Amino acid sequence: MQWVKVLGVVVGAAALLAVGIILGHYAISKGADSTASSISASQDLDLEILETVMGQLDASRIRENLRELSREPHLSSTPRDEALVQLLLQRWQDEESGLDLAKTFEYEVLLSLPSEEQPNSVTVVGPTGDILFSCRQSEENLTGEQAGPDVVPPYAAYAPPGTPQGLLVYANQGSEDDFEELQTQGISLEGTIALTRYGGVGRGDKAVNAAKHGVAGVLVYTDPGDINDGQSLPNQTFPYSWGLPPSGVERGSYFQYFGDPLTPYLPANPSSFRLDPANATGFPPIPTQPIGFEDAKVLLCNLQGNSAPATWQGALGCEYRLGPGFRSDGDFPADSQVNVSVYNRLELRNASNVVGIIRGAVEPDRYVFYGNHRDSWVHGAVDPSSGTAVLLEVTRALGTLLKKGTWRPRRSVIFGSWGAEEFGLIGSTEFTEELFSKLQERTVAYINVDISVFGMGRAWADWGRRDMKGLELEESRSLILPQPTSPSGGRGRPRSRALSSPQPNSSLSIYDNWIRYYNRSSPVYGVIPSMGTLAAGSDYAPFIHFLGISSMDLAYTYDRSKTSARIYPTYHTAFDTFGYVENFVDPGFSSHQAVARMVGNVLLRLSDSLFLPLNITDYSETLHSFLQAAQEDFGDLLQQNGISLEPLVTAVDKFQGAAADLDEQISELQKGTPDPLQVRMINDQLMLLERSFLNPQAFPEERYYSHVLWAPLTSSITTFPGLAIAYSTAMNTDAGSAAWAEVQRQLSIVVAAVEAAAATLRPVADL
Amino acid sequence: MQWVKVLGVVVGAAALLAVGIILGHYAISKGADSTASSISASQDLDLEILETVMGQLDASRIRENLRELSREPHLSSTPRDEALVQLLLQRWQDEESGLDLAKTFEYEVLLSLPSEEQPNSVTVVGPTGDILFSCRQSEENLTGEQAGPDVVPPYAAYAPPGTPQGLLVYANQGSEDDFEELQTQGISLEGTIALTRYGGVGRGDKAVNAAKHGVAGVLVYTDPGDINDGQSLPNQTFPYSWGLPPSGVERGSYFQYFGDPLTPYLPANPSSFRLDPANATGFPPIPTQPIGFEDAKVLLCNLQGNSAPATWQGALGCEYRLGPGFRSDGDFPADSQVNVSVYNRLELRNASNVVGIIRGAVEPDRYVFYGNHRDSWVHGAVDPSSGTAVLLEVTRALGTLLKKGTWRPRRSVIFGSWGAEEFGLIGSTEFTEELFSKLQERTVAYINVDISVFGMGRAWADWGRRDMKGLELEESRSLILPQPTSPSGGRGRPRSRALSSPQPNSSLSIYDNWIRYYNRSSPVYGVIPSMGTLAAGSDYAPFIHFLGISSMDLAYTYDRSKTSARIYPTYHTAFDTFGYVENFVDPGFSSHQAVARMVGNVLLRLSDSLFLPLNITDYSETLHSFLQAAQEDFGDLLQQNGISLEPLVTAVDKFQGAAADLDEQISELQKGTPDPLQVRMINDQLMLLERSFLNPQAFPEERYYSHVLWAPLTSSITTFPGLAIAYSTAMNTDAGSAAWAEVQRQLSIVVAAVEAAAATLRPVADL
Repeated sequence: MQWVKVLGVVVGAAALLAVGIILGHYAISKGADSTASSISASQDLDLEILETVMGQLDASRIRENLRELSREPHLSSTPRDEALVQLLLQRWQDEESGLDLAKTFEYEVLLSLPSEEQPNSVTVVGPTGDILFSCRQSEENLTGEQAGPDVVPPYAAYAPPGTPQGLLVYANQGSEDDFEELQTQGISLEGTIALTRYGGVGRGDKAVNAAKHGVAGVLVYTDPGDINDGQSLPNQTFPYSWGLPPSGVERGSYFQYFGDPLTPYLPANPSSFRLDPANATGFPPIPTQPIGFEDAKVLLCNLQGNSAPATWQGALGCEYRLGPGFRSDGDFPADSQVNVSVYNRLELRNASNVVGIIRGAVEPDRYVFYGNHRDSWVHGAVDPSSGTAVLLEVTRALGTLLKKGTWRPRRSVIFGSWGAEEFGLIGSTEFTEELFSKLQERTVAYINVDISVFGMGRAWADWGRRDMKGLELEESRSLILPQPTSPSGGRGRPRSRALSSPQPNSSLSIYDNWIRYYNRSSPVYGVIPSMGTLAAGSDYAPFIHFLGISSMDLAYTYDRSKTSARIYPTYHTAFDTFGYVENFVDPGFSSHQAVARMVGNVLLRLSDSLFLPLNITDYSETLHSFLQAAQEDFGDLLQQNGISLEPLVTAVDKFQGAAADLDEQISELQKGTPDPLQVRMINDQLMLLERSFLNPQAFPEERYYSHVLWAPLTSSITTFPGLAIAYSTAMNTDAGSAAWAEVQRQLSIVVAAVEAAAATLRPVADL
Repeated sequence: MQWVKVLGVVVGAAALLAVGIILGHYAISKGADSTASSISASQDLDLEILETVMGQLDASRIRENLRELSREPHLSSTPRDEALVQLLLQRWQDEESGLDLAKTFEYEVLLSLPSEEQPNSVTVVGPTGDILFSCRQSEENLTGEQAGPDVVPPYAAYAPPGTPQGLLVYANQGSEDDFEELQTQGISLEGTIALTRYGGVGRGDKAVNAAKHGVAGVLVYTDPGDINDGQSLPNQTFPYSWGLPPSGVERGSYFQYFGDPLTPYLPANPSSFRLDPANATGFPPIPTQPIGFEDAKVLLCNLQGNSAPATWQGALGCEYRLGPGFRSDGDFPADSQVNVSVYNRLELRNASNVVGIIRGAVEPDRYVFYGNHRDSWVHGAVDPSSGTAVLLEVTRALGTLLKKGTWRPRRSVIFGSWGAEEFGLIGSTEFTEELFSKLQERTVAYINVDISVFGMGRAWADWGRRDMKGLELEESRSLILPQPTSPSGGRGRPRSRALSSPQPNSSLSIYDNWIRYYNRSSPVYGVIPSMGTLAAGSDYAPFIHFLGISSMDLAYTYDRSKTSARIYPTYHTAFDTFGYVENFVDPGFSSHQAVARMVGNVLLRLSDSLFLPLNITDYSETLHSFLQAAQEDFGDLLQQNGISLEPLVTAVDKFQGAAADLDEQISELQKGTPDPLQVRMINDQLMLLERSFLNPQAFPEERYYSHVLWAPLTSSITTFPGLAIAYSTAMNTDAGSAAWAEVQRQLSIVVAAVEAAAATLRPVADL
């Protein structure tokens, strides 16, 4: 999992869903004959099959999957990554429990790797050129797994090589505002090295913002206040708790876009046109290197200058000052500088996707996708192997039924194990570029499970919006909340507040648990589980943003009322190991099992339901809430600038009317035995609805983003993103400015999209 | 009909087709029960219904339609245009012979109109400022129809207002080469007025090229050598023949793109964002005015300077010289100048489309479109009313069967009467922008019949590529060639060679006639009728280029071996009247009737055939011929620059294999009674194949053009257009240039598109 442009409010969220998936939405015939040989075009989801699958998803098998997957580091395109490709192929081609077909899709993509000969370094250099202090070049070997040639040292992927040296400043999270604050305080940034902490803005943004102010190099660290609830001592952190050890460093891609950097919009086949890397865009402009908080403390606590603002302070146990340079009474001479030496190299490497298929019996040309990436930064037990372990268990359970001949889905189900995700969702993006038109025309939905379990405690996802009471009853048996179990071994007992606090009520279903922690009030359905919106943090991004395919992302996460950790603490470090999961994330693997059941449930409902469980009434509510936010937050100033929201009101009303009519039509049809062609036509309306929100002209500056509802553009208002961005630019300009014209343009784009979406839902022969 | 970027070789062609329409491709059950009430999902085309329709298409009704449609001038958005909207609505809502539904789609679009108060003028101004000569401001009133307030005076739509004055030069067709030739001859173009003749490059291109050389104003005329086979005397031309009278002036749009100029990619609804006209692009940069050859002769035959090159000479009866300025022994003092005063105004006007629907009985969400524009420049008897007269007769025949309850198509048939086409395909383009996603997902094909009959003699279109012998036999009865009949009145007898020469062999079918004049050799089918490729000359352009919908354009045209006329002579003049058609274009209206039968035939086969008659083997041949051209013409130099065509060879082979396999699968299915869902899945593959050739990244400079096979970009080689353009730019640059990189990029785009197309044709569950 990697965060691309993930911003404050959704950090830590597994991102969520576009069209509401309704489980239990439609009445479903139970116990109908569903053997593969006799499947009929009118066959609906068979609940007995569903229960069988739920019952076969096994926690101990997931645990064994995870042990194998995370046994060794498997950075993208390394021999171990390729060995896992073979493991996936072998599982999916198994005669007893495999799929119909499994094969690889390979690409030649641009990765960024640290030099093996010249390790990156961060040092304090005294006035005479002496090296006074060196940051660690690798993490401390606490469990015997943090050393060895396969553990990639911490680095900022795609940061350019260079050896800048200068006075150190502290720049908080490295946002535009942060650097402006430093300027305001009279600090000259030219030629400095900026120390920043993770959070607030995307990784690559810190260097982009820094470079605008003349900063020469950037350091990034994780503050214990942001990840460990302040705890920072070795015995307070892993392997004694789930906390981040002082030497732990979050690796990550600092590329601003996603997909192979050299082949935007083209599949990265060997023969493809490639940009000259010198002309490629989206890389950090200046050398950047991540360090652990143990080293950050040495640098930060020795700074001189003004005290940093209160919100910039962290938990390193000293007062954070701004610099520039070190204070004279500290560990270093006052004019000591910091040197950042980065020797990263760009390399073309093979990235493999493994794709497995269960062919649909009735509508093989309708695809339900379920995917996760395979590559990790180091062992990647949580990220991504907790997801891959679930994926393998789900395919085993379904494959077994398939091979026995007791089940075959109505639609084709396609499983993806994507490569090179950590570098920027590269494998999945290249796949969507290669099969663009085919996938766009035929894909019903894309389900992503990357990190399946962030921590114990809460379901975080969505699988329903409508007829929730029915769902609750139906699902209570198969989808019970996992029981917390005792950690089964490991080097210590959970001690951190974050770990011990989630104590889910064992009498609640997942649904109940979910609605308890994340809910919203719907005018139609009352209080229901709530979801965030999909950003671009995992492989769903090319599916939803580029292809316009309804997507969802499922995970179990920790109790955010009990810890402020911005993500699970060992994220992208060499401490994200099997032992970490077994001891501190999901002892007993019951949360993993719950996710497997969740995804299995969603998958079967999407693949086997006669009518697609895609909720258009939910879409109406989203449009209404977006509209309302626009009216409340933008209405007055829009009016003053002669821009009316009335056409948008009309369009949303039309959408709502068309959605309600179509829902009514579906309900009527379900009372009888609908003609298969009629079902197909309606399902096409439901499936293709999402496509009508794409507009490649909407955000010409953004790569791949073309969805006028879900494009993850920075805005504090939850409304149409293009409109919000344009408005925020225009609000301080004069009437008649180009910025206000852009607001009108964005509004027209939204109106056209909503009108087109309404048209898609209207009776098909009326235009 | 308007010509946008229509170039030399295809001028005069009605443009043609993208995916081969196969008539008679598949075995068709004859006489099956096809009453609307009992239509089944397995019902195939009913040949008896087809024959009934063929038999009811009536020449005299077409004649009456044309008389009414062309009775008065009906320039876009004028009261008469709106009256015709009502006529269409009334016909399509008729209780005896109407459609299921008819309604208007209205847009507020930017038109360019001459000032009513200040007529445009072209004058010769003597050294003292006296006006020595004035060009006509309107055409001569030869038939009583060329005067009156509704006859818009000749002008160049979208040419900017201005009153440049300067020495006259003759610039041939106004191509880039032409102006370079003038420079080479040492002629200073700064501040001159350039006299150009129609042809060679698009209308607007002449001013674009001229302005680059400092020219201040442009005149455009039609040389009698290009339109009248040299004849230029009043008694050699209309109303004494089909020739262009000396005062006749071709009006036209000089806009470089198509669609409403202020709302690219957005429907031009009243509330839509509009560009500031000052920021709109695609208008001629300098004042431009068209004149008749009578006036052009006065200007051109008085020029001084070098004799123009031989290919620049025309039929005005004097030696064409280059200027600048007039010769001292001519009609004007040597330093006389030419003044071009243009007072065109931009106005937002309503443009109405009338859309009529026959709802499909089995697959109402599959659309077969048949359209033509309604607006004309003046009476527009040929352009476009000859097409609209056919459209009304086809809808009458089908509507009558519909209302009687004897027929309803399998798929929905949608008829479009588009507005504001003459200004740049505006009505149809806005319609496709409004319903973009819906039309792209559901439209099977778009059929265009603009000018239905250019002249007597030849079928010019395509309706088949495969199994032609079967077609020939089947169609010989209903699609016989029209018999030439005597002109039924009029002011004179045909005299021009062009008119009297076409003497089609009356024993031939349309098919035979067509294959005789336009044929090609197919490795699979032998000698078959040939087609050109669709450019952007009529309303099919947004359908094929923007939406990627298989499109065709049908017409009857004149014998090009007998006349060199670049188009029918009264094109876009006030002489394109009912009498012109009746006397000189299609006496007896048998050619109109033949077109009606052709289009009715194609329409029914598209709407009613169980398997869509879209020929993918033909597409293979096109790809092979494009590939072969690229290999032969570009291969050596590509290789020298390290660019290999091998990936393209592989992709084309894959396409061919997948197409053959799918054809085989269809043939097998036809032997039994295929499952309706299976038929639907295969038809979706056939329908959506065309979409896989779209790539919005392919030609970022071009508005709407995104089809990597059919984008009408200028090239002398019939191959992948993006590749050809890039190659022609690169061929004179060094290895490693940006131009060669663009060649590689274009090649990768083509490879990706052909690979994607092959993927679309492969078995649906194998990816």
